[in-house]
Amino acid sequence: MNTTTIKLITIIAEGVLKDRLIDAILKRGAKGYTLSEVHGHGSRGISASFWDGAQVRIETLVSPAVAEKILQHLSDEYFKDYAVVAYAENVEVVRGEKYM
Amino acid sequence: MNTTTIKLITIIAEGVLKDRLIDAILKRGAKGYTLSEVHGHGSRGISASFWDGAQVRIETLVSPAVAEKILQHLSDEYFKDYAVVAYAENVEVVRGEKYM
Amino acid sequence: MNTTTIKLITIIAEGVLKDRLIDAILKRGAKGYTLSEVHGHGSRGISASFWDGAQVRIETLVSPAVAEKILQHLSDEYFKDYAVVAYAENVEVVRGEKYM
Repeated sequence: MNTTTIKLITIIAEGVLKDRLIDAILKRGAKGYTLSEVHGHGSRGISASFWDGAQVRIETLVSPAVAEKILQHLSDEYFKDYAVVAYAENVEVVRGEKYM
Repeated sequence: MNTTTIKLITIIAEGVLKDRLIDAILKRGAKGYTLSEVHGHGSRGISASFWDGAQVRIETLVSPAVAEKILQHLSDEYFKDYAVVAYAENVEVVRGEKYM
Repeated sequence: MNTTTIKLITIIAEGVLKDRLIDAILKRGAKGYTLSEVHGHGSRGISASFWDGAQVRIETLVSPAVAEKILQHLSDEYFKDYAVVAYAENVEVVRGEKYM
């Protein structure tokens, strides 16, 4: 079967950032996203009070070019001042054009 | 340490499809699966009402051959008529024979 | 943009093991982790009663060396007697030094 390799971006952030982050990824070309609730814990440089509650996990399947734009934006706007974690990985999908 | 590379398949679908999808992956050779609740949002070609509720995320670790069968089945039976998202990725496990 | 490839380790286990597992990954060098609730189902060699409840998913971003130590520990201490599932995958991050 024909599969296409695209990027899965996962962002974990304080719930209060949810709407801003969703807006940011859609503006950079994401066609959809998945939300779930997680509890994040950082043991270094993150105050305990920050993590004292639920975080949101946002996942989106995008082209490599869109992935680059999203990571660049997060790096420019969030990584310095917010406890936002983000990572990209390669995944295989059928009908990859749906996500591009 | 010896690790084996196998496939992690992730399926995100409307909750009502859960039992059918679980049945489908077990029939094609999956030995187990993990369920969690997510909220999916598609910005193109998916009606808002569809996503107005919880979706299920089904994850399963399988051999490449079983992964191929599962993706083929989803492609044949679901991708045209349902808002099912599925992707495969390579992961490393210890005692890979457990999943084969 | 400069990204670094690091390891994402995912562990799925009975909730009662949560604190021991978190302690184990932090002791081996993980700098943080994310928790979420899942429902696991194994179709072979796992009693139905075991899975009759919620499991915890623990995720952590670590260096390849720390990933190796964590998988080795899980293999030595858990895989024989507990229904613990664990896998590692490569992910790209910005500012990889944060996780090392």
